[in-house]
Amino acid sequence: MRSKYTISQFADIAEAYPVIFFDSYGVLRNHRGLIPGAVETMDRLRKSGKHIRVLTNNAARSPAMAAERLAYYGMKDIPASEIITSGATTRHFLEQKVKHGKVAYLGTATSAEYIIGAGLEAIPISEVDFERLDEIGAVAFLDDEGYDMNVDINLLINILRRCQVPVVVANTDLLYPTTANDVALATGSVARLAEYVLGRKFVKFGKPATQMFQMGLDSVALDMPEVCPGDILMVGDTLHTDILGGNTYGMATALVLSGNTRPESAELEIEASGIIPDYVCPSIGQ
Amino acid sequence: MRSKYTISQFADIAEAYPVIFFDSYGVLRNHRGLIPGAVETMDRLRKSGKHIRVLTNNAARSPAMAAERLAYYGMKDIPASEIITSGATTRHFLEQKVKHGKVAYLGTATSAEYIIGAGLEAIPISEVDFERLDEIGAVAFLDDEGYDMNVDINLLINILRRCQVPVVVANTDLLYPTTANDVALATGSVARLAEYVLGRKFVKFGKPATQMFQMGLDSVALDMPEVCPGDILMVGDTLHTDILGGNTYGMATALVLSGNTRPESAELEIEASGIIPDYVCPSIGQ
Amino acid sequence: MRSKYTISQFADIAEAYPVIFFDSYGVLRNHRGLIPGAVETMDRLRKSGKHIRVLTNNAARSPAMAAERLAYYGMKDIPASEIITSGATTRHFLEQKVKHGKVAYLGTATSAEYIIGAGLEAIPISEVDFERLDEIGAVAFLDDEGYDMNVDINLLINILRRCQVPVVVANTDLLYPTTANDVALATGSVARLAEYVLGRKFVKFGKPATQMFQMGLDSVALDMPEVCPGDILMVGDTLHTDILGGNTYGMATALVLSGNTRPESAELEIEASGIIPDYVCPSIGQ
Amino acid sequence: MRSKYTISQFADIAEAYPVIFFDSYGVLRNHRGLIPGAVETMDRLRKSGKHIRVLTNNAARSPAMAAERLAYYGMKDIPASEIITSGATTRHFLEQKVKHGKVAYLGTATSAEYIIGAGLEAIPISEVDFERLDEIGAVAFLDDEGYDMNVDINLLINILRRCQVPVVVANTDLLYPTTANDVALATGSVARLAEYVLGRKFVKFGKPATQMFQMGLDSVALDMPEVCPGDILMVGDTLHTDILGGNTYGMATALVLSGNTRPESAELEIEASGIIPDYVCPSIGQ
Repeated sequence: MRSKYTISQFADIAEAYPVIFFDSYGVLRNHRGLIPGAVETMDRLRKSGKHIRVLTNNAARSPAMAAERLAYYGMKDIPASEIITSGATTRHFLEQKVKHGKVAYLGTATSAEYIIGAGLEAIPISEVDFERLDEIGAVAFLDDEGYDMNVDINLLINILRRCQVPVVVANTDLLYPTTANDVALATGSVARLAEYVLGRKFVKFGKPATQMFQMGLDSVALDMPEVCPGDILMVGDTLHTDILGGNTYGMATALVLSGNTRPESAELEIEASGIIPDYVCPSIGQ
Repeated sequence: MRSKYTISQFADIAEAYPVIFFDSYGVLRNHRGLIPGAVETMDRLRKSGKHIRVLTNNAARSPAMAAERLAYYGMKDIPASEIITSGATTRHFLEQKVKHGKVAYLGTATSAEYIIGAGLEAIPISEVDFERLDEIGAVAFLDDEGYDMNVDINLLINILRRCQVPVVVANTDLLYPTTANDVALATGSVARLAEYVLGRKFVKFGKPATQMFQMGLDSVALDMPEVCPGDILMVGDTLHTDILGGNTYGMATALVLSGNTRPESAELEIEASGIIPDYVCPSIGQ
Repeated sequence: MRSKYTISQFADIAEAYPVIFFDSYGVLRNHRGLIPGAVETMDRLRKSGKHIRVLTNNAARSPAMAAERLAYYGMKDIPASEIITSGATTRHFLEQKVKHGKVAYLGTATSAEYIIGAGLEAIPISEVDFERLDEIGAVAFLDDEGYDMNVDINLLINILRRCQVPVVVANTDLLYPTTANDVALATGSVARLAEYVLGRKFVKFGKPATQMFQMGLDSVALDMPEVCPGDILMVGDTLHTDILGGNTYGMATALVLSGNTRPESAELEIEASGIIPDYVCPSIGQ
Repeated sequence: MRSKYTISQFADIAEAYPVIFFDSYGVLRNHRGLIPGAVETMDRLRKSGKHIRVLTNNAARSPAMAAERLAYYGMKDIPASEIITSGATTRHFLEQKVKHGKVAYLGTATSAEYIIGAGLEAIPISEVDFERLDEIGAVAFLDDEGYDMNVDINLLINILRRCQVPVVVANTDLLYPTTANDVALATGSVARLAEYVLGRKFVKFGKPATQMFQMGLDSVALDMPEVCPGDILMVGDTLHTDILGGNTYGMATALVLSGNTRPESAELEIEASGIIPDYVCPSIGQ
């Protein structure tokens, strides 16, 4: 098969785009800490006047907490206002579409802030009263922690067999890395299992769905009113989320090989998936 | 299971929304012609100052041709500028993402206008020269007519086994009605078959993907700059496209029972799919 | 749509078949206890010389324990030798295909008897030593109890990312009833989730796969050497397992409405699934 | 990942098994003709008293025609009685399960022999009279040739929307090679598309489903009454059919690298799929 890409230096390709969207984990940092050279790269981009946003499939933390975490690792100048989480798009949906009732959720108490922030009452799945299911206005998959899989997934399935309410998934990732070699089931896997056994379709947030890209673009438009997707470079380490979503939204896309996609298998994965980034770079530090 | 909806009159629910998006087939007209009362409803909405757009999963016709067709059936006052087709979102993608090369397509010559309109050269799959595949910059599924399924799908599959280029699908509908009782395979079915046998992911346009909603909102924003999804009522006859997509985008949604979803099975289909419209109406004429 | 079935009395249709295979849960008993009239029906079938087997998607109990349980509920004359479990077909596979090594499993200690019965060593997933993965000869999904979903599914996924060994699923059921209204995830759901996130294919046992039918036929052939699938009536309450598998194996099939498939939705489910039983009966007691 | 196989010589591994099942295309021959050394290997196996069967996913030709074709290429001593086609298992199903009515089919006139051989009347989909659908007793997907995809797939879908009859698929292969580089859609792809748009489950024949293995074993049992799956070596070139099905049925499996699975990607495909052959050989000639 004919290959269409060569390896580029990130600094070279970033020049042409006034706006740059970064995925966080695997791009800015990984399990070892910050990607070497990432701080210098971000400084240089800021100085040259680029608009920067971080788009992360995560509903476990608020943008403020995500900013703190990046600062803790050494990337100190990304304000919460430049971080778009899939939790924030979920909150936006809940605000628009759920007018009343409690939102029953799977996740940590921290993740429930996205429900409370929408002006709604959050209740863990384990505390739902089956005698009062008419109180439930929506069900949300927020995080893979904060509940007991042995019990609470069955509760959720039985609630949904009785209740016809919107179901939202705040993160469609299937797995996330826990060490260099190990992974754990992410929220998207559990939601997919529930969809499959129930035969239903849930409303899903997080890349590759395009709401986060739109929220990022709307945020940049406050400073750069004429911005359009063609002005933006989406930088990510995952073909099925960052690159597929970025391509679909009409942005330029750069795959970095510092995270999920490894240098030795990048070409094969691109060929096999048919998801083709405009650029491939070793990392944003190079 | 607890049911959450009652049957509403379309006139009553439309009042609360300054912007109304309509699907076309099954909503404005069906195989018998215009939906009874549809012209009067549209007149009334215009007079009360509503912003109207028609969003149709169709790349077989340009917006101008779609407007002519509605006029032919008797709905004369919908201008092409208020019609958003999935072909138009596809054209937009091709403009942004395909810089050079020919776009090989499955579809009619008319559907290829969406390629040409993006400033690119269109070539039917059947005319692709296997000795010069490096000329091909993208592959597009546009329409279910205009080619020979016996030959051209195999050609397309063999081209994609050799070429690593973006593949776009201009309409993800699986079937479309041809008479009251009969259906035919739509473009989305053929694209899905190709994805499945190749193990790849294509870039897809048309509801429920949200690009058309965004294009509709951007178009309304020229006249109503502060418009947001919560201002919009999406009216459709199909749960998996109009209602799922509308809900995901954060718009209010109304299911009409004049097309794909029949009155006798609506409740069951809503329960079974978990795709829940905010309103259900017999038709836009009632 | 044209309907092809009428409701039959079980006694009438059983007459024509010298061999009858029964599913257990939903057919012989349900959450309330034995199906009314089931004991009398079985007595009558025995007296008229029918060959009887019970085929159950279950690896949680041995055939002897399954026989005891039926006896406890009041059906005393079904010997263990007439009960075929999906655990038994799994054990058969392990005997034939896994020559050495430990079999790491998800399930209860009781379910592990199917591994030990194959002459192999069983080790719970939670006790696998990641430093000695070369000891592992196969991985088995046996039961939905006996392990901690929060921890052990991730362990299993990380083992399979490192080890290239056969993976067997002893029961492909997705859900099982726990009360009249409630269900719980069965082994097949958890296995499917693991297949999905790993992108692999496991070896699966239990109806609709045909190994259990073959094991049932082989068992009957000891007494009735010329038996062929056309001699057998498969009686079940679930379209996707009992009826689909029975049809595929070439047996006559009878759907009973005393379990998973309810009288009010039977016709719709048959139409929707395209899985068509030869007969439909209220229960085996009628 | 730990690899479990080394490359073996076919002659060495065949010794231990009294019965050998071969796939045909990719194993005995490929697009260039007979695999070098295949005739000598078969002679040697015959002389040492092995029981041989050829199991081919094919309903386009009768066993007699398949034998002629092998003879034409130079393999002259495989009688029709030793060839098991997926068409033959389909015919067996039709005999057992379809008592009356015409069987409407997609395929060539030659493939329809499998319907006629079951004592039933065959009618091409294109000749079905929509006014007399109650004559139709079953629908069969037999071959990818002999009909017009542009018209007949839509006819078939509309027939199945009106008729509740068994649907059988005589070959679940998705693609077949037409030259060294090119493929064409096989019957299984078309059937899968119809299943998907209709939301139904068809009855499927051909490897990896185990009916063909059972038919092969039953045929060998006439000469070797005690034969069991553990006595058999299944030799194939395709992981998802020959090896997955052979493993599931409890036979030993040997992957040959002379067909669908290429030497350079074999290890990766085994790892990625989790379908693990007991042996890997360059070809049956080596």
